[in-house]
Amino acid sequence: MTLAELAEQLRCRLEGDGTIEVTRVAGIEEAGPGDVTFLANSKYLPKLTTTRASAVIVDDRVRSAPCALLRTAQPYVAFADAVAALTPRFQLSPGVSPLASVDPSAHLDADVAVGPFVVIGKGVRIGARTALHAHVVVGDSAKIGSDCAIRERVQIGDRVVLQDAAVIGSDGFGFARRADGTHQKIPQVGLVVIEDDVEIGAHTAVDRPAVGETRIAAGTKIDNLVQIAHGVKIGRNALLAAQVGIAGSTVIEDDVIMAGQSGATGHVRVGKGVKVSAKSAITKDIPAGSHVAGVPAVPVAEWRETVVVARRLPALRQSLLNLVERVRKLEK
Amino acid sequence: MTLAELAEQLRCRLEGDGTIEVTRVAGIEEAGPGDVTFLANSKYLPKLTTTRASAVIVDDRVRSAPCALLRTAQPYVAFADAVAALTPRFQLSPGVSPLASVDPSAHLDADVAVGPFVVIGKGVRIGARTALHAHVVVGDSAKIGSDCAIRERVQIGDRVVLQDAAVIGSDGFGFARRADGTHQKIPQVGLVVIEDDVEIGAHTAVDRPAVGETRIAAGTKIDNLVQIAHGVKIGRNALLAAQVGIAGSTVIEDDVIMAGQSGATGHVRVGKGVKVSAKSAITKDIPAGSHVAGVPAVPVAEWRETVVVARRLPALRQSLLNLVERVRKLEK
Amino acid sequence: MTLAELAEQLRCRLEGDGTIEVTRVAGIEEAGPGDVTFLANSKYLPKLTTTRASAVIVDDRVRSAPCALLRTAQPYVAFADAVAALTPRFQLSPGVSPLASVDPSAHLDADVAVGPFVVIGKGVRIGARTALHAHVVVGDSAKIGSDCAIRERVQIGDRVVLQDAAVIGSDGFGFARRADGTHQKIPQVGLVVIEDDVEIGAHTAVDRPAVGETRIAAGTKIDNLVQIAHGVKIGRNALLAAQVGIAGSTVIEDDVIMAGQSGATGHVRVGKGVKVSAKSAITKDIPAGSHVAGVPAVPVAEWRETVVVARRLPALRQSLLNLVERVRKLEK
Repeated sequence: MTLAELAEQLRCRLEGDGTIEVTRVAGIEEAGPGDVTFLANSKYLPKLTTTRASAVIVDDRVRSAPCALLRTAQPYVAFADAVAALTPRFQLSPGVSPLASVDPSAHLDADVAVGPFVVIGKGVRIGARTALHAHVVVGDSAKIGSDCAIRERVQIGDRVVLQDAAVIGSDGFGFARRADGTHQKIPQVGLVVIEDDVEIGAHTAVDRPAVGETRIAAGTKIDNLVQIAHGVKIGRNALLAAQVGIAGSTVIEDDVIMAGQSGATGHVRVGKGVKVSAKSAITKDIPAGSHVAGVPAVPVAEWRETVVVARRLPALRQSLLNLVERVRKLEK
Repeated sequence: MTLAELAEQLRCRLEGDGTIEVTRVAGIEEAGPGDVTFLANSKYLPKLTTTRASAVIVDDRVRSAPCALLRTAQPYVAFADAVAALTPRFQLSPGVSPLASVDPSAHLDADVAVGPFVVIGKGVRIGARTALHAHVVVGDSAKIGSDCAIRERVQIGDRVVLQDAAVIGSDGFGFARRADGTHQKIPQVGLVVIEDDVEIGAHTAVDRPAVGETRIAAGTKIDNLVQIAHGVKIGRNALLAAQVGIAGSTVIEDDVIMAGQSGATGHVRVGKGVKVSAKSAITKDIPAGSHVAGVPAVPVAEWRETVVVARRLPALRQSLLNLVERVRKLEK
Repeated sequence: MTLAELAEQLRCRLEGDGTIEVTRVAGIEEAGPGDVTFLANSKYLPKLTTTRASAVIVDDRVRSAPCALLRTAQPYVAFADAVAALTPRFQLSPGVSPLASVDPSAHLDADVAVGPFVVIGKGVRIGARTALHAHVVVGDSAKIGSDCAIRERVQIGDRVVLQDAAVIGSDGFGFARRADGTHQKIPQVGLVVIEDDVEIGAHTAVDRPAVGETRIAAGTKIDNLVQIAHGVKIGRNALLAAQVGIAGSTVIEDDVIMAGQSGATGHVRVGKGVKVSAKSAITKDIPAGSHVAGVPAVPVAEWRETVVVARRLPALRQSLLNLVERVRKLEK
């Protein structure tokens, strides 16, 4: 698509060469020639001077850039439209697409659907009714359960295990708020990469981001009913127990252990080897090697002390009231 | 079915005209001619005088009513049986039922199953292996993922997006406790309505109620692994993040934002524009426009203050103990 | 497989008769002739003298046993390999296996897959696209939703109801930590037993253990998005609301009620009739008949008192500061 065509479709004012071909939307730092990027948050303004993108979607606060400009009052909404405009669509037909590459040693159970340009490696086993959408790559010896949904362009490493009904590549929860209070979907068309030796539990969802990737590094094990939001990076050999939730763009480093029903907010970093107690809530960066607990999570020793004192609170309050009375007598 | 036949099946004593045809079970206020209702909680006794139902299931505490009576010692259990007796059953055959209406512009991926009397609108896309049970209605341009289960009589609006493996119309968690401590299932045969422009995440469940409806109003976006219980009403343009849970009959008004892993108990009302912090628990009505946090949820400013003081609790306790000692010296 | 063959495969040193046939891995107390067991935790050393197993995997700390020994530096890792070596594999073909026994009165919706040696009882109804793997047994009148995955050798009782997309028999979250910090999967090949009249919600996962069984006793009802980990035992007529999580090997006794988003840690016992408030965390044994709340859970009366005082904490702190000032004046 030419930049002029895209500008018309997004209802943006074009400043620059309309004949440039654009094929993709990317973040301001990753974008290269042929890519469109956007600037919705003025925090990223300094990065604009060095972007390698072919065009950038901006509002009137931006004077100039080293590339073409697409001007609009709502850059974030136009960005969402741009992603939709530049993403190809595939349909999933029954059976194995003649355009897929399936190693003869792979075993597919009943009613597996394999889309075009899917690659399935040696010794792979795929359970009944699992759907592999276009461009999915499954490494050697991976074992995928039944009723899994693996969305377009997801990469699955060697010896990965997916339990039944895992969903990999579901859309991230990303919406741009319109002026009237309604929410415009930001198409989520980035990548999901599941590295070698990862295991993912039943009913766990790993979301695809708008741009960039969601990545689970090698050797990490994830239990059932876990939510991995868009753009999350999880390091190597981490353990995430059942019903854990990780919000968007958060980084969980190597060897982290998160106990059941704990969670982490978006855009934070949980350091290498951190242990998180059950039901805790990570709300900020956690230094490597620490063990945290509570909502919000604090060092576990501190949490334990607070819990002990909290149970004595009614007695503490009574002590204070008694003391007030004694002081009153002394004051007379 | 005649009222006499139903009375026999429910082992109830009939007082009134046994030849009346009854076709449905409904709540005491919604019920009209042809409907059977019930009175299990004496709180609703005043409403009995004005019910338009053809018959009501009651115990011996009720003297009379403006309609036929079905008497039993356990009205709630008989109500459950009545719902089961009056609900037709459909089977889902492979492929598209010849009794379904599917717009020619709709695209169905591999192995979609479409039951009788299903209506699928213009430009709809339905993912591989999704099941649409009898009487489901899907509006124009809706996009439904793979491996979704959409139960009988669910209504899906225009441009709705369902991520993979969403379940819409699962049975609500409703049981009547029998005298021996076992639980009798109350058939959940009400409606689920998903209005226009709603998005629902992977592995999210929206339950069907026993009577009445569960409704997600237009423009609301719901993330992965969310539980929407039976009879819940969610307003317009709300945002529910991953792993949120809403218990039965609760009302979430327009523009509410609930962060990840938060929840609301049953039968409460969360006012327009309320913000709920992550992991919080709504336990009562929340006034419009407030921002709440904590378990149980309180205004966020109060919650923050409590969290700060709570972290100082051990020091506070030490101060108190020191003070007790100083007062003891003064008292000597 | 002979013990000599197994020893070679596990790279263990064999002490004893290599011609013994072994067919199964079992816990040290349940193991009988033909079984291999293991000793990874010295706590279980006393039980070794009375084991009826044909062989035991041990490290060099163990001198002798009443059976053959398989010596290795890492018994837990070798145990994991032994389970993998002794577990047969089945493939699930499309349709109903000719080696399955399906009662003619059973109704299977579209595209159900039934593996070899599956037994389906009278009047059973199975929803579209559900997969029943090898050796599954489904009792009379059970009603199984669509898109369920029921793994090998799971037993489903009479009149059980599974909502759509339930997964029964997913692998427990069990890994042995290798010396290099990576995690070796312990094959989860025990049984899952769902007794009569149980109901299980949409997107609920019931995990299979490595050895022994996970069991849901008769009459228990489980809501949507619940996690039941490996080796959990749930008693009769319990009620578990949505998004509850039960960690491995925990016992939930009869008539327990757990409200939404609550959880229990592993290896604890929740006594008969216990009530657990929403969002609470069970961290230790709970005596029968109690009602608990909070994180960690305490008796509900205590929890309520703490919550009330906690809300007054800022005022309490101010009172203390004022009092310190008054005492200071008195001391002058």
